[in-house]
Amino acid sequence: MRADRDVLISEVGPRDGLQSIQAILPTAAKKAWISAAAASGIAEVEVGSFVPASVLPQLADTAELVAHGRGISGLTVAVLVPNFKGAQAAVAAGAHKITVPLSVSETHSLRNVRRNHAQMLDEIRRIGELVNALPEGQRPHLEGSLSTAFGCTLEGVVPEKRVLELAVALMEAGCHEVGLSDTTGYANPAQVRRLVRALWSAVGRHQLSGIHLHNTRGLGLANAVAALEVGLNTFDASLGGLGGCPFAPGASGNIVTEDLVFMLEAMGLRTGIDYAALLAQRALLQQALPAEPLYGMVPLAGLPLGFQPASASPGSSKGS
Amino acid sequence: MRADRDVLISEVGPRDGLQSIQAILPTAAKKAWISAAAASGIAEVEVGSFVPASVLPQLADTAELVAHGRGISGLTVAVLVPNFKGAQAAVAAGAHKITVPLSVSETHSLRNVRRNHAQMLDEIRRIGELVNALPEGQRPHLEGSLSTAFGCTLEGVVPEKRVLELAVALMEAGCHEVGLSDTTGYANPAQVRRLVRALWSAVGRHQLSGIHLHNTRGLGLANAVAALEVGLNTFDASLGGLGGCPFAPGASGNIVTEDLVFMLEAMGLRTGIDYAALLAQRALLQQALPAEPLYGMVPLAGLPLGFQPASASPGSSKGS
Repeated sequence: MRADRDVLISEVGPRDGLQSIQAILPTAAKKAWISAAAASGIAEVEVGSFVPASVLPQLADTAELVAHGRGISGLTVAVLVPNFKGAQAAVAAGAHKITVPLSVSETHSLRNVRRNHAQMLDEIRRIGELVNALPEGQRPHLEGSLSTAFGCTLEGVVPEKRVLELAVALMEAGCHEVGLSDTTGYANPAQVRRLVRALWSAVGRHQLSGIHLHNTRGLGLANAVAALEVGLNTFDASLGGLGGCPFAPGASGNIVTEDLVFMLEAMGLRTGIDYAALLAQRALLQQALPAEPLYGMVPLAGLPLGFQPASASPGSSKGS
Repeated sequence: MRADRDVLISEVGPRDGLQSIQAILPTAAKKAWISAAAASGIAEVEVGSFVPASVLPQLADTAELVAHGRGISGLTVAVLVPNFKGAQAAVAAGAHKITVPLSVSETHSLRNVRRNHAQMLDEIRRIGELVNALPEGQRPHLEGSLSTAFGCTLEGVVPEKRVLELAVALMEAGCHEVGLSDTTGYANPAQVRRLVRALWSAVGRHQLSGIHLHNTRGLGLANAVAALEVGLNTFDASLGGLGGCPFAPGASGNIVTEDLVFMLEAMGLRTGIDYAALLAQRALLQQALPAEPLYGMVPLAGLPLGFQPASASPGSSKGS
């Protein structure tokens, strides 16, 4: 975390947003988005996912986007990989950060990647060996992301004990960090606080810094506040909530970058991100994807009269 | 607060929702709504406002609704009054609770009720004398509500010092309690925490228990979490977010009762409210007002699979 930033926002729209829609954003438009995001102060972008183009043709240009992102000074280029083959491609492309999801719901894991927990952990162990064999300067950061950690649409309640066990297993498999993901939009603020604290006890405070929240039930920012309060400082978000939520018309999928940045800056927390520049990115995205609805309330309501973002005052500190 | 309830939700839709729309809900439908709300476990309903029918014809039947609400066992019948004349009508009707708003932004006060702070405080002092002269059993609870407490669309930033001074003035004028109102949807969670704590220092902890939040910028539930965390336990909310927000298409005005109840119950906090019964009320409201959009995300996404509300487990306690 840089000294002039209190919270890191990782823009996952180019991956999580674009994989959720039918339209394929041209590579040039993706590059322009990534560049604009970086220029607006976003320090990390998940540019894509190394999955077969037959599965997600929307993300077939991920290697090219990694190369583009690596050319932007100061930007952390993150990618998602579902398996060892994807990790090899991510390493070859030179991604700075590799996230591999492990679904805490085994039913979801079988449905999603056709692997049970043991098979998936074997795969992640191989990824860990691959990554950790690289010389330090070339070694990407490896995050094991606990998806469906707050509940599953197939299994329902997910026992917290199971989340903790799998977090430990991810660290043992060679991950450098675990992430918490509310894939299903089931999380609530009390659960966020409880689970973050329990995970810190299980794997260590520095092994969990980030959370991936969805806004399916309108609780996305409320959960972010709970996570902030406990001490997390890294949040995934998606410009315009791109991709929406298939289960809830009118609801964004990921929490909306614009709304999250507004909330944090209003709270006195510096994101380092320029809100006006985000709005310009939003306009470009809407132009490039005219049929896709974008989400977010602050872009519609406007900033409060007299609003002063925390990032505009270099001397400011946490306001809460 | 009853022993089997952790949080009190005051349903303000019949007042704040209905005053914001053109359509006039028939008195019979309002009565049915108030009865259904009470039957679902809502312990307080703001049934209307004593304002001239020429100003708000939608609320012309407030006296009749107070009488109806008084006939429902256990229900607290609340009303809004803008002035002494309204307070006389509220007392005559037998309201249990009278809320009189005082806008912290003097510009807003002048625009809204054509009175500056001194004039408004004189009016409230007269209301306090009226109310406090009544014998104890007949004396309604008098709340002075600090509107635009988090910022104003006309004045911009509202100094916290001004909020505190006016809170003290409201208590000196004879109010039994002050309320905090984010009329403009400007509040953020850090500000909520800070202002609640400051107000408690200024007027005493028992003189502020409730908050009225809007969701104009999507932060309604995030602000509610901050308020909960500091220790507030009373929240205004509106069924279906009725009335919406004129500045932000797609945004509810008040926070949505359904989403708030879901969040609290998921957090292990008992509202005493039956979620399924809320959905039934929502359906009736939509039937009675077919042209009005309703808001809320949980009604669209559905409850999580295996969801257990806190109120269903009588032995549960605070989960956060």
